[in-house]
Amino acid sequence: MIIHPQELRAQCRSGAFTGYTAAHCAGFVQANICILPRDWAYDFLLYCQRNPKPCPLLATSEPGSWHLDALGADIDIRRDLPAYHVFREGEFAGEFGDLSEFWRDDFVTFAMGCSFSFEQALLEDGLPLRYLERGSVAGVYETTVATTPAGRYTGPLLVTMRPFSPSDAIRAIQITSRFPNVHGAPVHLGDPAAIGVDLTRRYCDVGDASVGPSEIPLFWACGLTPQKAVAAARPPIFITHAPSSMLVTDLCNSQLASF
Amino acid sequence: MIIHPQELRAQCRSGAFTGYTAAHCAGFVQANICILPRDWAYDFLLYCQRNPKPCPLLATSEPGSWHLDALGADIDIRRDLPAYHVFREGEFAGEFGDLSEFWRDDFVTFAMGCSFSFEQALLEDGLPLRYLERGSVAGVYETTVATTPAGRYTGPLLVTMRPFSPSDAIRAIQITSRFPNVHGAPVHLGDPAAIGVDLTRRYCDVGDASVGPSEIPLFWACGLTPQKAVAAARPPIFITHAPSSMLVTDLCNSQLASF
Repeated sequence: MIIHPQELRAQCRSGAFTGYTAAHCAGFVQANICILPRDWAYDFLLYCQRNPKPCPLLATSEPGSWHLDALGADIDIRRDLPAYHVFREGEFAGEFGDLSEFWRDDFVTFAMGCSFSFEQALLEDGLPLRYLERGSVAGVYETTVATTPAGRYTGPLLVTMRPFSPSDAIRAIQITSRFPNVHGAPVHLGDPAAIGVDLTRRYCDVGDASVGPSEIPLFWACGLTPQKAVAAARPPIFITHAPSSMLVTDLCNSQLASF
Repeated sequence: MIIHPQELRAQCRSGAFTGYTAAHCAGFVQANICILPRDWAYDFLLYCQRNPKPCPLLATSEPGSWHLDALGADIDIRRDLPAYHVFREGEFAGEFGDLSEFWRDDFVTFAMGCSFSFEQALLEDGLPLRYLERGSVAGVYETTVATTPAGRYTGPLLVTMRPFSPSDAIRAIQITSRFPNVHGAPVHLGDPAAIGVDLTRRYCDVGDASVGPSEIPLFWACGLTPQKAVAAARPPIFITHAPSSMLVTDLCNSQLASF
């Protein structure tokens, strides 16, 4: 049964829903979340501007506000995700279902597009994403490609890998090029070593590394890139969504298409 | 004779070139410039993120730095434009050919794409821009459409108008959609009154207002929008390019195409 994002967020808020959001509210944009103190927000905004592929910013809140009106009229970012990860001085400090006790008047929320949107567009066009059939996600890798630094933030580009036949690869490039706000076109195809990737060594063991014999790996910029850059900068506190526990917005994926 | 942007910037720097940049360095991206104190920069970055059509940000400098390496290796933003407009408390305070005497350690430079790039793409596709033949620019209008506020910045959307036959209008929408970093697709077509525009009343009398009997006016977001919003916020000082005296960058227009 497909429920509306507003209903799913209400279930998160009440504590009734605590699972992964990936398989829910098909057709609606899901967003990566990063919450930072205002002192750390300017450099993050700049980092996103300079690295739009890994950090495709959809909306930024007012300091202290838990609303994100651009993504849904009733959003309470403190409670509308199934789970959050809190980091102190760059170190993981726990998973929580509600941020009310952590909330500060100077918190700024950044919401960024995620690959769930373009994966739906790929599936709708008939392209196979076999890791989804296996209940997994795309493999994540750290590259030797540096992002463009901004103030205190710097770090390597992280990527997700999806394998395709040559003709499907061309089609996947065309389709994802239409969605710059959810990572857009791939950043690399073919030889993983050219960007410093060994397919057997996934970042934090996340996702599926299989590439078939006649397939080519395509690499897209990954939303874990800004999270790693922020952790390395060690702000006193920052908060993200828990893995696969995203903000489900009222925007339709098709609204993000640039052409 | 076509000279390279680096040579044109050197001529600006030495004072040998003081004219309009529009007809020079065909094929290279020209940029709107806004220079603000660091205290006023976060809100401006946010304003650009929330209003990407009028404020398509190409690059942002480090505070105090006069370099913009993303747009050209040798840029000295204090001297590489033919002329600058300096504003104090939101009021015009004079036109200058060199900013050295005004420079502050906390100045942040914002460079934004401008419509010269998509006009070249329209011309290359054979679409007529008759105001150019008449030595003019596209008409500029203030609309009743509000931009999305960010901190101290708010104000109306300003637009440029270009008239086309119906078939050329469709083609113009397709072509400019490929260039989101230079205002992208139009924001409106047809009835000017629907966005509060009277074609006989141009903003500051800028540009050409003619629409032929079988033509449809198309309206694009205009780079004067952020300039008006910043002036209304009355920062102690801000600096822009003088009209039609842009930063000529080393980027090719075709590098900005999204598809």
